[in-house]
Amino acid sequence: MTTDPVALTADLIRCPSVTPEEGGALTLLEGLLSQAGFECTRTDRNGTPNLYARWGRRGANRSFGFNGHTDVVPVGNPGDWSVDPFGAVQKDGYLWGRGATDMKSGVAAFAAAAIDFVTDTPPDGAVILAITGDEEGLGTDGTRAILDWMDEAGEAMSHCIVGEPTCPETFGEMIKIGRRGSLTARITATGVQGHSAYPHRAKNPLTAMVALLHRLDTAELDQGTAHFDPSTLAVVTVDTGNPATNVIPAQSRATVNIRFNDRHSGASLSDWLQAEAAEVAKATGVRLDLDITVSGESFITPPGELSALVSAAVEAETGAAPVLSTTGGTSDARFVKDHCPVVELGLVGKTMHAVDERVEIAQIHRLKTVYARILTDYFA
Amino acid sequence: MTTDPVALTADLIRCPSVTPEEGGALTLLEGLLSQAGFECTRTDRNGTPNLYARWGRRGANRSFGFNGHTDVVPVGNPGDWSVDPFGAVQKDGYLWGRGATDMKSGVAAFAAAAIDFVTDTPPDGAVILAITGDEEGLGTDGTRAILDWMDEAGEAMSHCIVGEPTCPETFGEMIKIGRRGSLTARITATGVQGHSAYPHRAKNPLTAMVALLHRLDTAELDQGTAHFDPSTLAVVTVDTGNPATNVIPAQSRATVNIRFNDRHSGASLSDWLQAEAAEVAKATGVRLDLDITVSGESFITPPGELSALVSAAVEAETGAAPVLSTTGGTSDARFVKDHCPVVELGLVGKTMHAVDERVEIAQIHRLKTVYARILTDYFA
Ligand SMILES: [Zn+2]
Ligand SMILES: [Zn+2]
Repeated sequence: MTTDPVALTADLIRCPSVTPEEGGALTLLEGLLSQAGFECTRTDRNGTPNLYARWGRRGANRSFGFNGHTDVVPVGNPGDWSVDPFGAVQKDGYLWGRGATDMKSGVAAFAAAAIDFVTDTPPDGAVILAITGDEEGLGTDGTRAILDWMDEAGEAMSHCIVGEPTCPETFGEMIKIGRRGSLTARITATGVQGHSAYPHRAKNPLTAMVALLHRLDTAELDQGTAHFDPSTLAVVTVDTGNPATNVIPAQSRATVNIRFNDRHSGASLSDWLQAEAAEVAKATGVRLDLDITVSGESFITPPGELSALVSAAVEAETGAAPVLSTTGGTSDARFVKDHCPVVELGLVGKTMHAVDERVEIAQIHRLKTVYARILTDYFA
Repeated sequence: MTTDPVALTADLIRCPSVTPEEGGALTLLEGLLSQAGFECTRTDRNGTPNLYARWGRRGANRSFGFNGHTDVVPVGNPGDWSVDPFGAVQKDGYLWGRGATDMKSGVAAFAAAAIDFVTDTPPDGAVILAITGDEEGLGTDGTRAILDWMDEAGEAMSHCIVGEPTCPETFGEMIKIGRRGSLTARITATGVQGHSAYPHRAKNPLTAMVALLHRLDTAELDQGTAHFDPSTLAVVTVDTGNPATNVIPAQSRATVNIRFNDRHSGASLSDWLQAEAAEVAKATGVRLDLDITVSGESFITPPGELSALVSAAVEAETGAAPVLSTTGGTSDARFVKDHCPVVELGLVGKTMHAVDERVEIAQIHRLKTVYARILTDYFA
């Protein structure tokens, strides 16, 4: 039997699984996987739907996992689409619909590869699919809940691939082996209001704000590391709301976002920001309060067995080895990395979250072929 | 005959002359001055009421002028006042009401001094009162209109006192011989929006804005001049309105206010600002547009005959010479200075524009005495 990943992607697109709706997507997968011999568990938490599926024995020495999500972002105005966003129309060599790229095709490709793989003689190992219905939302009870449940149930993956789109333009050109961290600092500068004709009688919070932001904006955080681009800092907003040109305001606010590599941590950057602010506050007499949120630490699965396996499978299919990248936005790999080595490999992400999201049909087949080769090689 | 400046101030307070209303104030003065032998002309322009009054011959060699205004700012919420804002209540040694300080007492004091003076034998000169009903508004057709009319009519002042409040705390402590200029620059930084994870793909307008504002804010414009404090620059607002921490905004705006002395002009500062902006724009690739308004050039009547005359009169009354200052906000002296030497001398300005505006009754008499001595000495 050969499972068609395109038909499965289309079936999944027809499930209107806009976060937090399950939309029938996990139920569909659970049915298929159970039928193929997978032991399936719905590891829902706080109403968030999750599916854990394992073929092979629990606690096997080598267990290869795939992680992905079936939920999708809203379609926006359906009238802006050329097609029914949940219609799974095929035309011009593409399969169209919300989630076509992000990432029902990825889930379909690894599910199809896994189902076909287990019709072979079982190796001494396990194939695990950890699929959540909440990656696009807060994700609090999504992949994290599956991993928590696995810990408690004595389930584990030795290695894992996240099937999110990873390629900017061409299938196979890039896999992701880590991510930069992200930190947001909300800065409030509080001085003393006054007349702009007499700045020395006031304490202008903007003098401190501008001085601090200029220091931060011109600081070189690092020059990049072995696997990471240089860390970056962006001042994303400064707001004061003072309409009077003859008044020095009492307060101003700004927000700074830092994307950082493995040279830093959320804690080390928080310390740096606080020290810079303290120095400017001391020099200006303006109070500077920082409200810092670390939404993710940087992480990396250093090049090794897993990336070599995945690269080799990609190269066998496309003729070229993928770039090992740490760029891009966040994904559930940031949760998986605390449990086992993880890399990400998926399709071209161009139309994700956009109107007329679509995926080249031929690429879905190729992705399934690569996933299948990874499983074969892993258990060879 | 001795004209009572307190009764006249009270009569003027009872005229509800909130800009642009004449409120009967100029009509009242016109009647009194005509009766005292002044040649009065209502030099209204575009509906703005103005009063020009001259005693003595037109084109006299020496003509001493007083300038002031009868309009007042709004009372705000009348319920916040302890008294009727137009009631001219006398209590605790004070005369209460809107305009008591700014500047119906000043107008009453110079009108009373002028009326009493002309009952003496006329000198070979003229006493001129130029009183407008719009100083607190736009002022386009106020003192400017009187001065324009004077030019056309062959009328002129050799020297002039503006009777605005000039003393911070104590009567006689300060006269004003000039003012700093004021310039406002509205800066718009326009870059290219993008994702904050990839600052190099965007052009962050805030990088340029923060760099430019820091340059301007830390620049030393000068160290002060003979009669002026150092020029000052204040960043009064920066606004972006970007709520998304993962987005680099396309645009940000800021406003800078400069108070400048006679080392600079509106034009020289505009050139400086444009040059600084051009340099930052070149370095960052961000477009920086400046919208510059010069609301007044700096000016000075250098210490000389007029300030010596006024200082001596103050010292004779109070026992101490006043400070010759160039501080403070704008006044109609900025128009008068293009026509003749001008200084400002008036009462304590503490409660001007405030709820419960009031003036110490005794000080109105003293101010009239000083103005009277100035007239006597000037024509001696
Ligand atoms: Zn996704
Ligand atoms: Zn005034």
